[in-house]
Parts: sequence; structure tokens; C-alpha cells
Amino acid sequence: MQFATIHHQGALRFGLVEGEAIHLAAPGETLRQHLAGDLAALADRLRAAPALPLDGLRYAPVLPDAPQVFCIGLNYRDHRAETAGAIQKEYPKEPIVFARWATSLAGHDEDLPKPANSDSVDFEAELAVIIGRGGRHIAKARAMEHVAGYACFNDISMRDWQMKAGQWTPGKNFPKSGPLGPVMVTPEAVGPLDDLTIRCLLDGAVMQESTLGNLLFDIPTLIAYCSEFAELQPGDVIATGTPGGVGFVRQPPVLLEPGKRVVVEIERVGRLENAIVAE
Amino acid sequence: MQFATIHHQGALRFGLVEGEAIHLAAPGETLRQHLAGDLAALADRLRAAPALPLDGLRYAPVLPDAPQVFCIGLNYRDHRAETAGAIQKEYPKEPIVFARWATSLAGHDEDLPKPANSDSVDFEAELAVIIGRGGRHIAKARAMEHVAGYACFNDISMRDWQMKAGQWTPGKNFPKSGPLGPVMVTPEAVGPLDDLTIRCLLDGAVMQESTLGNLLFDIPTLIAYCSEFAELQPGDVIATGTPGGVGFVRQPPVLLEPGKRVVVEIERVGRLENAIVAE
Repeated sequence: MQFATIHHQGALRFGLVEGEAIHLAAPGETLRQHLAGDLAALADRLRAAPALPLDGLRYAPVLPDAPQVFCIGLNYRDHRAETAGAIQKEYPKEPIVFARWATSLAGHDEDLPKPANSDSVDFEAELAVIIGRGGRHIAKARAMEHVAGYACFNDISMRDWQMKAGQWTPGKNFPKSGPLGPVMVTPEAVGPLDDLTIRCLLDGAVMQESTLGNLLFDIPTLIAYCSEFAELQPGDVIATGTPGGVGFVRQPPVLLEPGKRVVVEIERVGRLENAIVAE
Repeated sequence: MQFATIHHQGALRFGLVEGEAIHLAAPGETLRQHLAGDLAALADRLRAAPALPLDGLRYAPVLPDAPQVFCIGLNYRDHRAETAGAIQKEYPKEPIVFARWATSLAGHDEDLPKPANSDSVDFEAELAVIIGRGGRHIAKARAMEHVAGYACFNDISMRDWQMKAGQWTPGKNFPKSGPLGPVMVTPEAVGPLDDLTIRCLLDGAVMQESTLGNLLFDIPTLIAYCSEFAELQPGDVIATGTPGGVGFVRQPPVLLEPGKRVVVEIERVGRLENAIVAE
């Protein structure tokens, strides 16, 4: 099953995506409200509603109201290697977790402003895990029961602002710097993750390519870890980190500039594409 | 004027606080919705509603739905001195900003759990600035026009989790680790800030004491800076940092333990008191 959130008649609406159409839920209903419940029953209900063609609709971030967006830093070996020392001096034995607010999310196909006050706007293709049932102190062995689905995420990073003061928050929370979508795909529709390819393309050229099995801290570990310090909530997002190939450490650097198009593509999860525009 | 958010008949309600009573707004209305508007007109309307005695009511965080809680690190000289090297190796020329989600906030008088998985739970008395009108690229000279009010904040920090991996997010987002309140006081009711005393008391003993004029980056600078990377929203909170006297660098350390009571007190802004309990 696939769900999306779109702009429709001046409001946000979510719905079930099937083929090239979306069956919208009622006005005021949100995907988040349903994530801890029975998504198959929800899909059955929505399927009875008339479908709109997706073509021409404007996507919102699939979870526009995510309570907590946990972002994992330096979670692929090749990304650690390429940034050695530039982002982090030492690698702790725990996951590196930083925070985004939902205010920084964007939709598929939404134009992303290149901020006038940053000269180092970088791409980061990531798998986003979307939490269904919340919880605290979740055991690793039960962690996957808390996953409602997956989505593509682009953790766009203003490197100058990220590195200014040690804490990465400013460089990771610019408006529309976190495209999430186009859809949330449920786990049974994705199947086993390890061999799936994740890619970032810039104007069609492959910038990043890896498989999800290369995550240093795997998804159950990340869910369990985040639930040790926070109470996970339905609709929370865990962005699992980005593979090697980011732009700011390339020689010469390859950065996001107005006129470029950036794509995050994950097999069986989706294809998230955005154009960069001037602020 | 003073506003509070309380628990009432199973829901959150906000209202105007006058004397020992609160005039509640309608169910479903939130303080956040009104912050960009005319608070004096709001107060006039609420004053016409019947008042409930505050005594016996349970406080919620004054902004339970704050979209973005910007926290400023190491913003008093004596706090930099006492933690030298323990939190931050170098002091950048910009403010240090880290993020809390609203999920970590708590109310005045709410029992705060000492997490079973942290042995270093510390207090941090802070002035919280609450944003009224939002904006981006706000000029320092106009920044105070964006302030809806002030509140006491306790930026309770799990030092072990804060320091694990460089990014402070885990140590700053435990559930109920950020008491905010009891009330939001509007700027005209607070008056000039610089000479106001801020204090933290633990079981009645003064642990921290300073004046708001000792902020290294002042409030207009912080508002302008945060609006450079994020779009400020009505109901955002900027926690301005804590003065010297925190517990984990004392010899011997003084930490929050079940049975202790912690108070943040700011002249003309309020007195925020919480008991620590076992998780």
C-alpha cells in the first residue's frame, strides 16, 4: 500500500495511492492519525471513495505534521570515509542523532529555494522510516513492529550553517530543505530491505549509490536507540543517514544551485524529485 | 497580561490569568493561534468569560504545540567558564543553536521523571522568548516586534546522553525534560529585562543566579539569527541559555534525583517549580 499527502482545494489531504490515482480521505483527516492503526482496513475504506488522477496534483511532505524527525548522521562507511574529520572528529559507539522540525519538510516535486545566505547546499539521499505505533524503551527484537512504512528523504544540508557552531541544527532546518515522499510505502509492499539500491541523481548523473544493507546502525537499532531518550509517536520519522558521494567533499565541490534537479531514488520505495530555484 | 495552558476536563485549554483565577478560552482554541494577533483584544474577550480558580488546576506547558523550540547553548560567560572544554571545545562567533521538539516540554508543577537510563540529570534555568508574529530574515532592529511574551524554562539535560555523540539532541529531548511556564507574560507586563534576576533553586538552595543583562547574545540577536536559517512561526520558543551554577560540573556534582524539587524563578516572569520522581 502507498499513501500520499497532497494539496487539494487549499488544504492538505491524504489518500491511498493506487496506480496513477489517489483515493482521498475526508477533509481534516491526516495520515498521522491512522499510522498506529490498521492500515489495510484504512485502505479498504479509502478504496471505496472516488479516485482523483495524481497527474497535476501537488504533493506535500508525506508526513507534514511529523512530531519528531530524528536524523542519523554518518551511518554509511563510505560517507564516514569521504568526510573524515570534516563533519565529525571521532565516531562514537552510539548512533549520532540530530533533530529536524517538521517545518523544514517539503513535498515531492516542490521547488526548493537555494537560500541566498548559504553557498554550500548539499544533497543527502536517505531512507526514511515512518513510525506507526509509538513507544518508549522499545526492544530491538520488537522494533520492526513499530514501522508503518518507508519513504525517500533528501536531507538537504547547508554545510556552512551546519558547521558554524558544532551543533548541526541550523544547517539542517532551512525551510523546504527536507523533501519527504512522494509516498509512504508499507513494509509488506517493500519487502526485504538489504539489497535495495538507494541513489541520488543530480541532473541525471548518479552522485550517490549504495544498498540499504550498508547501514552501519540498522533500523531496529535506530528505533530502539531513539526510543531510549524520546517517546516515539505515530508519524515520527527516522532518517537513516546518507551513503557516500555527497557534494561538499568532492573535488571540485558539486552543490545544489538554481536550475538543477535532484532525485532520491530507492528501489520499491519511490522516486523523489525536486528542482532547485533561487530564493 | 498573563496566559496559561491547563488540563481541564480531559483536554488542554488556555486562558487569561488574572489574580488567582483563569478565564478559559473555548475548547479547541490554543494560545498559539492567537500569538500573532492582538493579545490585548484577546484578553478583553476572555475577561468576559467566567473565571476558574487556579488552585487545584493542572498546568500544561504554556505552548504545548510549539512548532520549533530553539535552544541556545553557552550564552552566559560564567556558564562557559564553569564548563570549559566539557561541553564545547571552541566558542564560535555565532550563537550555538540546538533543537528540542515540543514532545519534550512539561508543565509547571508537573512531576518530572528521572530517567532510569541516565545518571546525570541536570537543571538549567532559562528565559524563554515566545514568538508572536513569525518571519524570515528578521532585522535585529525589528526583532522585538516579534516577541509575544516570556516564560520560565528549565532546560533539563541528561549530560551522559548529551555528550555521547557530539550532537546534543538525545540529552535534550527526554519526555518531560523541558518545563515551560507557568505562564506566558507579555512584554509590557515584564518591562525592561536587563536587571531582572534569574535563579535556579534546588530544594530551596540557590544553584544559579544571574541577571538577564548577562546574556552574551541578546534577544534581538537570537531572533534575527534563528530567522536566518528557519522561518519563525507563532508559538516558537527561543530558550536563551543558562547562567553558571549547573550541577554536573560542581565538585561533587549536584544532580536531579527523585524527591528533589527544582525551581526556575525570573523576576516579573514567574516561578516554575517541579518535583523529580522516579521513572
